[in-house]
Amino acid sequence: MTHTFTASPDLSGTADRTRAADRVVAALAARTRSAPGGRTADLAEVERWFARLGRLARMSVRAVPLDTLAGWRRDPRSGDLGHESGRFFTVEGLAVHVDGAPVPRWSQPIINQPEVGILGLLVRRVDGVLRVLVQAKVEPGNSNGLQISPTVQATRSNFTRVHGGKGVPFLDHFRGVGPHRATPAAAPASGPAASRRLIADVRQSEHGSWFLHKRNRNMIVEVFDDIEVPPEFGWFTLSQLYRLLAEDDLMNMDTRSVLSCLPLADSGLGAAVPAGDDAFRAALARSCAGGVSRHRTEDILMWLTEARTRGEVRTGHVALDGLAHWRRTRTGISHESGLFFDVIGVDVRAGGREVARWMQPMIRPHGLGVVAFLVRRINGVLHLLTQARIEPGYVDVAELAPTVQCTPANLAYLPAAARPRFLDHVLGADPDRIRFAATLSEEGGRFYHARNRYLIVETDRDVATGPAEGPDYRWVTLGQVAGLLRHSHYVNVQARTLVACLHSLLGAER
Amino acid sequence: MTHTFTASPDLSGTADRTRAADRVVAALAARTRSAPGGRTADLAEVERWFARLGRLARMSVRAVPLDTLAGWRRDPRSGDLGHESGRFFTVEGLAVHVDGAPVPRWSQPIINQPEVGILGLLVRRVDGVLRVLVQAKVEPGNSNGLQISPTVQATRSNFTRVHGGKGVPFLDHFRGVGPHRATPAAAPASGPAASRRLIADVRQSEHGSWFLHKRNRNMIVEVFDDIEVPPEFGWFTLSQLYRLLAEDDLMNMDTRSVLSCLPLADSGLGAAVPAGDDAFRAALARSCAGGVSRHRTEDILMWLTEARTRGEVRTGHVALDGLAHWRRTRTGISHESGLFFDVIGVDVRAGGREVARWMQPMIRPHGLGVVAFLVRRINGVLHLLTQARIEPGYVDVAELAPTVQCTPANLAYLPAAARPRFLDHVLGADPDRIRFAATLSEEGGRFYHARNRYLIVETDRDVATGPAEGPDYRWVTLGQVAGLLRHSHYVNVQARTLVACLHSLLGAER
Repeated sequence: MTHTFTASPDLSGTADRTRAADRVVAALAARTRSAPGGRTADLAEVERWFARLGRLARMSVRAVPLDTLAGWRRDPRSGDLGHESGRFFTVEGLAVHVDGAPVPRWSQPIINQPEVGILGLLVRRVDGVLRVLVQAKVEPGNSNGLQISPTVQATRSNFTRVHGGKGVPFLDHFRGVGPHRATPAAAPASGPAASRRLIADVRQSEHGSWFLHKRNRNMIVEVFDDIEVPPEFGWFTLSQLYRLLAEDDLMNMDTRSVLSCLPLADSGLGAAVPAGDDAFRAALARSCAGGVSRHRTEDILMWLTEARTRGEVRTGHVALDGLAHWRRTRTGISHESGLFFDVIGVDVRAGGREVARWMQPMIRPHGLGVVAFLVRRINGVLHLLTQARIEPGYVDVAELAPTVQCTPANLAYLPAAARPRFLDHVLGADPDRIRFAATLSEEGGRFYHARNRYLIVETDRDVATGPAEGPDYRWVTLGQVAGLLRHSHYVNVQARTLVACLHSLLGAER
Repeated sequence: MTHTFTASPDLSGTADRTRAADRVVAALAARTRSAPGGRTADLAEVERWFARLGRLARMSVRAVPLDTLAGWRRDPRSGDLGHESGRFFTVEGLAVHVDGAPVPRWSQPIINQPEVGILGLLVRRVDGVLRVLVQAKVEPGNSNGLQISPTVQATRSNFTRVHGGKGVPFLDHFRGVGPHRATPAAAPASGPAASRRLIADVRQSEHGSWFLHKRNRNMIVEVFDDIEVPPEFGWFTLSQLYRLLAEDDLMNMDTRSVLSCLPLADSGLGAAVPAGDDAFRAALARSCAGGVSRHRTEDILMWLTEARTRGEVRTGHVALDGLAHWRRTRTGISHESGLFFDVIGVDVRAGGREVARWMQPMIRPHGLGVVAFLVRRINGVLHLLTQARIEPGYVDVAELAPTVQCTPANLAYLPAAARPRFLDHVLGADPDRIRFAATLSEEGGRFYHARNRYLIVETDRDVATGPAEGPDYRWVTLGQVAGLLRHSHYVNVQARTLVACLHSLLGAER
């Protein structure tokens, strides 16, 4: 089996074009300020909280050569990187073949982390207002130290204590919980005696370009009694979190993902349908709450079946050593173009983690990504233009993704046909059509300084209607997306971030 | 990585216990006659049709040693069997680890067929009555020659003509079709000019114990104009097909699977809700059409998330040669106990197939299986007791399966804890509680003489209610199952057969 990257290997001018792309994205970011309103008070509260945490906020991260990672070893035959315990994750080579795609064959490094971890939010209603328990957490890949994380963010290796670290706080609240309010009959003395109920529990995919078959359980559990929390944890109202979503690099990816799975009925958003409010928010509210959709949900599902089977998608494990167009460097593994991403090694010293020092491989992407939904009012109901997107790491071929999801700098290396259909529409959007804009970080436990410019761009131009949607795009409502979010394999992690951002524009109770 | 079958290797008495189990199943089959009514006229019509087909009905199948299969080769390193073209399927070794299961580790041969084929039914409404286009087809694994197959039953290799055979009739009707009635604008002269619409299109899994990650598209397309059909095809009303479902070994697995995906609104069953009919059928009708379910569907989904993540399930490719507890025999590969299944080779000569002669490996199971749903009226709405069942070949760990799905003969080899919880309830069921019984064949293209006794057993005993459902079982309505059947990964192939059988008990328009 030979797999090679069939795009042009002529790299002359790549660097220039990459710099040009980066300038365009930087200009876009400068032009699209974060959404106004609510910034100061909420952010000041977070800053005071972060400032109080002292050593918990400290983490030093130093790049070290991949071959020197203590606890990790390189398979002598394949060069694959794995932990000595056999747990956590491995970095492997993957060969990909996508029939009919602009780049039909390539190979790449990929993270294989078959364990299903838990991303959990505890919520509690106080005087009818939903409060959410979040954690200030620093991850080695964060570009700015602390970010707001879910109550629990733990791999299976974490909570089965493979690395001999401390226990995961609040984990027991997410175990043995059902959909109906119940107090555990035999609650352990130190365990979760509080009565509770399960609001959401669904495995969702993560980045299919960097992770092979990765899924995490996204869980939301409501507690009915007060519980004590350590200083690195804090209760925020849903409205506060939604306003904080618009701050750059503050709400981490896992928090955004779990928030997107919060059902409308539990969020209080249902009661917040604006009367006499602006037309955009009214259309957004109708989109969440049963407004008529352009397509029936069953037709969206059949469209996705077709998109998943139109061409064959084959992936296969190949040796990490000797991947075509990838090179071992002094520090790690890089693409010959200097684009896409590197596999690097890091040496981490943490103040408040389960284990105070460790080493690990990470993925370091190049360039700022652009992730955007085009949205449009159709008969007074806001619709999102979603894309059926194939990524090699998905368990089920393709998932619903934002209208645009790419790193413009990488396009310098790719054939012209790989340029995303609506990218120019987004890059050139009139600032007053931009309903949401923030630069947000991807998962800091595996990705080093991975950031995307997240945008919601309203259009009323006929960019894609009726048959013009084409085979890869469909207009859907937020209500339809919420229904799909009860299932695995449908809404990709970038789209989930933007769904949480759209919900945030509705506002919540207070 | 070493994987061994950890169940008792003490085979003394296995043969006796196997014979005893087979006697129990045979007695069950004798005691549970097929459902009464409608048999003679419909069956006579099918028999006349089959008799007219002449050479199309002829197929000779001869067992030959695996190593002599023309067109197939054995990988020199692993012993895996594959076709020279690289297409169709391979027979590989699989190592399985299921945390916490009665048998936590084993290895076995498995069929790897990554291609997604099409199982398609064309339907047409004539005077308001739905008619279904089916095909009389013989497969090498059929124990009785011809069975009733879908309009199209084709692997991707079939319809991309890898084996250079004839084209697949009616395939074009399943291409480029959308959910709305449309006549193809540029219909080719010999193509499907008839206007049509897509009713169902969903990839569904097949036997996860014998197939690795196998999925087929289950498609239903309605045509609005008359189309000519060759003699091996025939139009039957849905009512006729439903009555024929009760005949032993007549409706093939693929037909049953696609029929299960027919939405209620299109089947005419919605109009057939009996007024003043018997209480069972009334409860069945309510179960299909929105009757109140014991559990909310979102809670069923969360229960399945828990079942899919409770223990870790790991599978990995291992060499087919040298699988622990499996042996190469003169003819193929068999388990040391003589139970489970063999991998055999067959030499096939067909009268009416795309290719007149070919050889291939097949799976030949031992013993008649028992596949049963316990059903119960809860507040006047029929509920099925479904099981979250882990099979190593599923893409997503576990799917909803019938209450009981096993081959009793195999239990002789397994630890006592592996005995299915409700098996004795089914084997000892009072005959007047049996609402459906038929012995039906599994897919005859890959499985040789694979047959199961399919049963619907009504219970009013408190076999599993409330918390007594336990972690692995839940009562669900047919309406809930119909909703899940719009998605992949939820309803396994055995459950789909029984869903079609339950629908058949409602009766249709005429």
